[in-house]
Amino acid sequence: MVQSCPEASPAKWHLAHTAWFFESFVLREFLPGYRLFNEDFPWLFNSYYEGFSAFPEKRLRSSFSRPGLEEIRCYREHVDAAMERLFEREPEPEALRRIELGANHEEQHQELLLTDILNAFYTNPLRPKYREQGMGNREQKLRNAGEDARTTAGEDAGATRDQAGPLGFAQFDGGLREAGSSGEGFCFDNEMPRHRVWLESYSLADRLVTCGEYAEFMADGGYRKPELWLSAGWDAVKANRWRAPLYWTETDGMWSVFTLRGEFPLKELEAVPVSQVSYYEADAYARWAGLRLPTEFEWEAAVEGKPVEGNLLDSGNLMPLPPTDLIQNKNATKWYGDCWVWTSSAYLGYPGFKPLDGALGEYNGKFMSGQMVLRGGSCVTPERHIRATYRNFFSPETRWQFSGIRLAT
Amino acid sequence: MVQSCPEASPAKWHLAHTAWFFESFVLREFLPGYRLFNEDFPWLFNSYYEGFSAFPEKRLRSSFSRPGLEEIRCYREHVDAAMERLFEREPEPEALRRIELGANHEEQHQELLLTDILNAFYTNPLRPKYREQGMGNREQKLRNAGEDARTTAGEDAGATRDQAGPLGFAQFDGGLREAGSSGEGFCFDNEMPRHRVWLESYSLADRLVTCGEYAEFMADGGYRKPELWLSAGWDAVKANRWRAPLYWTETDGMWSVFTLRGEFPLKELEAVPVSQVSYYEADAYARWAGLRLPTEFEWEAAVEGKPVEGNLLDSGNLMPLPPTDLIQNKNATKWYGDCWVWTSSAYLGYPGFKPLDGALGEYNGKFMSGQMVLRGGSCVTPERHIRATYRNFFSPETRWQFSGIRLAT
Amino acid sequence: MVQSCPEASPAKWHLAHTAWFFESFVLREFLPGYRLFNEDFPWLFNSYYEGFSAFPEKRLRSSFSRPGLEEIRCYREHVDAAMERLFEREPEPEALRRIELGANHEEQHQELLLTDILNAFYTNPLRPKYREQGMGNREQKLRNAGEDARTTAGEDAGATRDQAGPLGFAQFDGGLREAGSSGEGFCFDNEMPRHRVWLESYSLADRLVTCGEYAEFMADGGYRKPELWLSAGWDAVKANRWRAPLYWTETDGMWSVFTLRGEFPLKELEAVPVSQVSYYEADAYARWAGLRLPTEFEWEAAVEGKPVEGNLLDSGNLMPLPPTDLIQNKNATKWYGDCWVWTSSAYLGYPGFKPLDGALGEYNGKFMSGQMVLRGGSCVTPERHIRATYRNFFSPETRWQFSGIRLAT
Amino acid sequence: MVQSCPEASPAKWHLAHTAWFFESFVLREFLPGYRLFNEDFPWLFNSYYEGFSAFPEKRLRSSFSRPGLEEIRCYREHVDAAMERLFEREPEPEALRRIELGANHEEQHQELLLTDILNAFYTNPLRPKYREQGMGNREQKLRNAGEDARTTAGEDAGATRDQAGPLGFAQFDGGLREAGSSGEGFCFDNEMPRHRVWLESYSLADRLVTCGEYAEFMADGGYRKPELWLSAGWDAVKANRWRAPLYWTETDGMWSVFTLRGEFPLKELEAVPVSQVSYYEADAYARWAGLRLPTEFEWEAAVEGKPVEGNLLDSGNLMPLPPTDLIQNKNATKWYGDCWVWTSSAYLGYPGFKPLDGALGEYNGKFMSGQMVLRGGSCVTPERHIRATYRNFFSPETRWQFSGIRLAT
Repeated sequence: MVQSCPEASPAKWHLAHTAWFFESFVLREFLPGYRLFNEDFPWLFNSYYEGFSAFPEKRLRSSFSRPGLEEIRCYREHVDAAMERLFEREPEPEALRRIELGANHEEQHQELLLTDILNAFYTNPLRPKYREQGMGNREQKLRNAGEDARTTAGEDAGATRDQAGPLGFAQFDGGLREAGSSGEGFCFDNEMPRHRVWLESYSLADRLVTCGEYAEFMADGGYRKPELWLSAGWDAVKANRWRAPLYWTETDGMWSVFTLRGEFPLKELEAVPVSQVSYYEADAYARWAGLRLPTEFEWEAAVEGKPVEGNLLDSGNLMPLPPTDLIQNKNATKWYGDCWVWTSSAYLGYPGFKPLDGALGEYNGKFMSGQMVLRGGSCVTPERHIRATYRNFFSPETRWQFSGIRLAT
Repeated sequence: MVQSCPEASPAKWHLAHTAWFFESFVLREFLPGYRLFNEDFPWLFNSYYEGFSAFPEKRLRSSFSRPGLEEIRCYREHVDAAMERLFEREPEPEALRRIELGANHEEQHQELLLTDILNAFYTNPLRPKYREQGMGNREQKLRNAGEDARTTAGEDAGATRDQAGPLGFAQFDGGLREAGSSGEGFCFDNEMPRHRVWLESYSLADRLVTCGEYAEFMADGGYRKPELWLSAGWDAVKANRWRAPLYWTETDGMWSVFTLRGEFPLKELEAVPVSQVSYYEADAYARWAGLRLPTEFEWEAAVEGKPVEGNLLDSGNLMPLPPTDLIQNKNATKWYGDCWVWTSSAYLGYPGFKPLDGALGEYNGKFMSGQMVLRGGSCVTPERHIRATYRNFFSPETRWQFSGIRLAT
Repeated sequence: MVQSCPEASPAKWHLAHTAWFFESFVLREFLPGYRLFNEDFPWLFNSYYEGFSAFPEKRLRSSFSRPGLEEIRCYREHVDAAMERLFEREPEPEALRRIELGANHEEQHQELLLTDILNAFYTNPLRPKYREQGMGNREQKLRNAGEDARTTAGEDAGATRDQAGPLGFAQFDGGLREAGSSGEGFCFDNEMPRHRVWLESYSLADRLVTCGEYAEFMADGGYRKPELWLSAGWDAVKANRWRAPLYWTETDGMWSVFTLRGEFPLKELEAVPVSQVSYYEADAYARWAGLRLPTEFEWEAAVEGKPVEGNLLDSGNLMPLPPTDLIQNKNATKWYGDCWVWTSSAYLGYPGFKPLDGALGEYNGKFMSGQMVLRGGSCVTPERHIRATYRNFFSPETRWQFSGIRLAT
Repeated sequence: MVQSCPEASPAKWHLAHTAWFFESFVLREFLPGYRLFNEDFPWLFNSYYEGFSAFPEKRLRSSFSRPGLEEIRCYREHVDAAMERLFEREPEPEALRRIELGANHEEQHQELLLTDILNAFYTNPLRPKYREQGMGNREQKLRNAGEDARTTAGEDAGATRDQAGPLGFAQFDGGLREAGSSGEGFCFDNEMPRHRVWLESYSLADRLVTCGEYAEFMADGGYRKPELWLSAGWDAVKANRWRAPLYWTETDGMWSVFTLRGEFPLKELEAVPVSQVSYYEADAYARWAGLRLPTEFEWEAAVEGKPVEGNLLDSGNLMPLPPTDLIQNKNATKWYGDCWVWTSSAYLGYPGFKPLDGALGEYNGKFMSGQMVLRGGSCVTPERHIRATYRNFFSPETRWQFSGIRLAT
C-alpha cells in the first residue's frame, strides 16, 4: 500500500487498476450481461480518464486500506472469469483490439510495479531487498548471467571497471528515413502514423554509460558546474540538492547503490550501466563527455530490423548488468534493455497524429507536453512489450525509472 | 498503513511505537540482559525524541511496508514478555514511574488510533464505517445510550433539535485559585507545578455547542464574515476553503457528517455536540454568539473535585451524543467527554515548569509554542486517562481531533 | 522599480542590464583602458551568465532602490561614451560581432520593457494607462492606423466582429526544406545551423485567432472541458483558475481587456487578435476548433522570402489590431506582428547546434528544455529585429507576453 | 518602493497609509464637506481593515508605481490641511480620540519605516548605509553617546567585551499585582482593561544579552543542538538554515553585522545588545544560559512607575548601543530601548478585553493568535510612544524587528 513518491502507486492499486482496464473498456462494452464486481470500482480505480468518470486524486491511492488485498484478488478473478466467457463468444474486432491494448497496458504496469516497489523499499528506512537470491523457474536458464553482478563482489575495482570495455561507436548514414509503426503488430497510438524524417549521419555508442564513468563525472565536479547543465536542470540540482543518481548514497566517503536485489558498493557496479538518472543528468553527462544524446529518430533508425535482445525483465536480473557479451564479441551491441535511454526529443505527436476515439484517446495524447522520449526498454520491461518504434516518455526531472544514457555524436 | 494527513500515523505504527516506548525508556535501562527484538527498531519507531536517536521523517511512516503487521505483533509480545520479567523483579521507583508514563502514553495513542482511523476512512473515497453495530462485551451495558443517535433517525428535525435543550450557564466565583496537579496520582510534567492564578468571576455553558447550533452559524454566513474571525483564522478559511467542520460534506444542499459509525444526515445529529472544529472556528463561533471561550484555568477551577463522568471511550459510542441526561436532570452537567473543548489559553509552561530529565523531557515541553490548550477528553478518551488538570494541546488550525466548543462569559 | 511577476524585471533594471551587456562583453575586452563605472555593477546587473560572475537572485531585482535612476542614466552615458571611443578605433571583427549581438540584445529588452510595464500596470490596482493618446514624432506617420482600435469604440459589436473577416487558409507544399539561418545577416546562435527538414503538405490560417473567436471558445465551456486540454494544461487551468486570457477581467458578466492603452470592453476588440494566452490555451483552442498549431518549420517555410510587414513596434500601436488589410485585400496576409504565435515545436537545438563560446554561450542554449517556440514577432517587437528564422521561446504556461494563435491544418 | 520581505512595506506606502488613516477614520466622519483627494485611495491604502473596504493584497504594495512619490506628498498635504481646518472647529471628543490614535498609529509606522528600510538595504546586494555620519539638529545633544559604537572600532575585542559589564539581576517580589492601563493617558485597546494577575517572586537581568554573549551561544553549537530549541523553533532553524541573527553574515570565518549605519565587524559590537533575533532564538538562548524569558507581566510590574529612559529613536543612534551607563552607575538599568524584549507570554486579550467599535476594532484584536508579546521599545521607537503597559506583538519566527533578549529567573 506504499506510495512513496507522487509518481508511484501502491502495488495493490496496480493489481486493481489493470483489472479495471479490462472491465471498463472491454467487458462493460462487449460482454452482454456483465455485472460489475463493485459499483464503486469503476471510478475508484480510474487512473486519469476524464472522459470515463471522475476519479480520486492520485495522491490518495495510498489511503485505500479498503478494499483489502483479498478483495482485489477476488476482483481480478471476477474479471478474469468474465474475460474467459468473452473469449468463448468470439469477440468482435474492436473487442480484440481493446483486449490487446489491455494486455499491453498490464505489461506497462508490470514494469511500474517493480519501479514503484524499488522506490518504496528505498524510502523504507530499513531498505529491504525485493529479491534475495533464488529465482523462479522461468529465469533459470539466464541465471548465470543474472548473478554476474553479485559474483564481482570482492574483485578489485580496476578489474570491475574493465568489464565494461572501452566505449565504441556504431555509425549510421543519414538520409530520408521513415519512423513510427507501419501498423503491423500491436502499437500504441503515439507510434503512429509512420512518417518521413530527415536524418544527418550520426553515431551511437555501442553500450550505455556505466556507473564507473558516471562516478568520474561526479568526481570532476559534475554536480557543481553550472556550465554543464541546462538552466532548468541546474535549478533542479540546486532545489533538490542532487549529488548523484537517485538510489546512490554516500557513507563515510564511499558510495553505494540500492537495487531490487539490495545495496551494492559502487565499486562492484562500476561496469554496470548507470540508472535512475534524470534527463537533466543525462544531458549534463553528455555535455561533460563532449558528446550528446541521440534523437528518438536516430535511435529508431539504428535499431530498426534488429532483434529485441538484451537484459530485459525475462532475464530475471531485475537490475542492469555489465555488457559482458560486448567484451567477448564486438558485434554484440545490445540495443535493448538494462535502462531506457533518454533521447533529446521532446514527446510530441507525429505529423497527423490521431489519438484513439473516446476516453482511450487520453491514454497517450494528453501527455504530449513537457516530457522527453525514452527508448529501448529496461531490465524490468517484458521482452514481448518492447520494439523499435516504442516511445516511453517522462518529465526531464524524473528519476525513479530505470533510465540511463546512451551517447551519440 | 494509511497516513491520510500529516498529523496522523498508520495504525501499525501506533502499535509499534507504544511498544517501543516501553523498550526504550523502561526495558533497556531497568531490565538487565534485555535483548532488542530488532536492532533497527530503536530508531525506526522513535517518534520525535532528538535526545534518544535519529528518527525517520514523520511523513515516511506510511512507507514502512516492512516490518509487516505480524512482525509488529511479535515485537509487542516480545516487549510484553520482558515487562512480565521486569515486574517479577520488583522494579525500582524510577522504573515504576516510567512504566506509569508508558501506560499513559499508550492511552494517548489509543485515542490517536481512533482519530487517525476516522481520518483515513474519511479520506478513503469509499468512506467505510469503523463500527457498524455490534459492540464488544465491555460496552454492552452502555449500549442503549450508545445507540441513541442512531434511533433518532427518522424523527423530524425539530424533535431532534429539542433533545439538546436550551443552553444554560453555571456560575463560578473568582479569586485566587490554584491550578495544576498537586502531585497525587499520575500527571504529565506539563501539569506541574501547582501554582496560584487569579480568576475573575465567570460562567461556563452547561453543555457543548451542538451541530444544530453550529449549522445556524453557517447559515448566517459564519464562514463568509471576516469580522467574526481572528486574522490567522480568516486566512485559514480562505486558504483551505473551509465551509463547515472537517467531516461535514454537502450534497445537493443537504449536509451529512462522517463518523466512526458511518455517515449521518446532519438532521439526525442536530442535538449532538459539534466536533472536528479548529480553534479558529470555535473562536469565531463564540464571537458570533456574543460570548467567548473559557481559559484553561476557568475550566479547571470549575471541574476540580467533580467526578470524571461523560461520554468517554468506555461508553463505546465512539461519537459525541446528545446531552440527554442534562434534559432530564438540570444538575447533570457532564464536564468531561464528547469533545475536547478549545480554551483561549496558549499552551505554555506553568511558572517554574521543569520538563522531565533526559530525552523524556521532550515529551511535552518542546511543543510549548504556537498551540492552544484543550481540556476535558472526548468520546475516544479512556475514562481512566482524563482528569481536571489534564492539558491537551494542538495548533489552532487542527481539525482532525474530537475538538468542540464550550462557551463562557 | 516594479517587478510584478517572477518573469518580469523593473524598467530601471532593463536600462542598466543592457548597458551592462556592452560593458561586460565589449568594452572590457576590446577597449583598452576602459574603466568600470562602478565596481559592483558587473555582478549586480548580470542576469544569468554563470560563466561570467555570481549574480543576484532574479526576484531581488525590485530591491535595487540604489543605484537610483539618475545613477543608471549616468551609467548608460558612461557606456555610450566608451562605445563612441571604441568605434573611433575601428573595432576588430569579434568586437563588431559582439556589438551587433548587444544591439539585438537591447532590442529584445525594448520588447520586455513594454511587456513588463503592461504587467506592472495591470497588477497596480489603479490600472494606469501606459499611453493615453499623443504619440511621439517617430510614430506620427502611422498614427491613423494606430488609432483604429480606438475609433471602433462605440460601434456596435456585430460590425466589430466583421472587421476580421472569415478565416482563410494558405496552402503550402511539403518536401525536403531547409530551415535556420544561412548566416547572411545577423542571427542568434539558436537559429543555426541551417539544416534540412522534411515537411508534409500543410495549410496556415491567413490571420490570427481574434478575441471574438476566443470568446466563443470560452462561452462553449472551453475552460471547463478537460478533453480539450493537454494534461499539464488542465492542471494549470485548475491550479490557476484560468477562465480567460491573462488581462481579461469580468465585471457583472461583461468582459474587458487591459492593454498598454488602457482598458477596453471586449466588444470593441472582437476583431482584434487574442493575446496573452499560454501555449496550453492556444493548443486547447486549436483542438476545440478541430485544427492544430503549426510547427516552427511549417511557419518558417511559409514566410521565407516574404517581406517583414505587420503591426510591429514601429507602428506605435502597442496593441494588436484588426487585420483590416486582409479584408480589403485577400492577398494581404500579414505573417509578422500583432502577437507571437505559439508553435507546436519544443525549443531544442538544431542538429549540430553550437552555442557561442564562453559565457555568451549561455545566451540561448541552456534554455533548451521545457519551452515551446514562438514565431513572428508582436506589436512591441521592433521591425528590424524580427525575421523568418527568428526563434522566440517560453514555457507553455507563460502568459505575460504578446502571444497568440495562428491555426494550421 | 522596495518590499524586501513579506512583512515589510515600501516607504512610499507608509507615507500614504498614515495619511489614509486620518482621512478614513477622522476627516470623513468629523470634517463636514471633506473631499477625498482621490476616489481610489480609500481602498488602495487600506492595510487590513475588512470592515472598512476591500484592500489590495499586501504583497502587491510594491507594484504601486503610480501614484508616484510627488502625488503621495500632495495627498499628505491635502490631509494635513484638512486636519488644520478640523482643529479650527474644536473637534468633538470622539474625533479627538481618533486623532490621538492616528498620531500613535503614525509613530508605529515611523518605527516600521526604519525597520523596513534596514531590511531593504540589507536585501540590496550593495548594502547601502541609511545614515553615514552627520545627524540632524535634533539629535545633537545625544551625539556623543550616539557615536560610541563607531569610536570603538579599532579597539581590541577584549576591551569591547568589557564595556557591557557582567550580567546582574534585579529582584522583584511576587504577589497580587495589577497589569494594563488604568486609562490615564493614551493607550491602545489591547492594554485594557487593567486587571489583577498573580506573580511569584522573580528577577530580571539588568541589561540585554549582548552580541558577544550571543556569539558564545553560537560557538557552543547553539544552532546545532535540538535540545535547546522548541520543536517549532528547531523546524525553523532547519527550514531557514538559521546560523546567526538576521543581519549577521560570515565571510572567511569573520562575522559582521549590518545596521542602519552600515556594516560592522562583530568584534566592534560585542558589548552591544543582540538584535533581530526571533522568539525561538531568544528562547533557545535563555535555555542555553540556564535561565528563561520573562512574562509580559513580570516585565510590566518591574518597570511600572520608572521613567521612560534608554536608547530610543530620539537619541538618533538608530542602532543598539553598549550599556555604558550601567557600568558607571550600577543603579542605571535602562528598562526601555535598544531592542524590544521577547516575553514568554502569548499575545492574548486581557480578561474582559473589548476591541474598539467598528473597523478600528481590527487594529489589534484580530491578531491575538499565534504571536508573542514584546515589551520596552527599541532604538527606533519614539520615546513618547512607549510606556510600561505597551504591548508589541510578532510571530515567534519574526526577525526583521529590533527584537532582543532580557533574561529572567
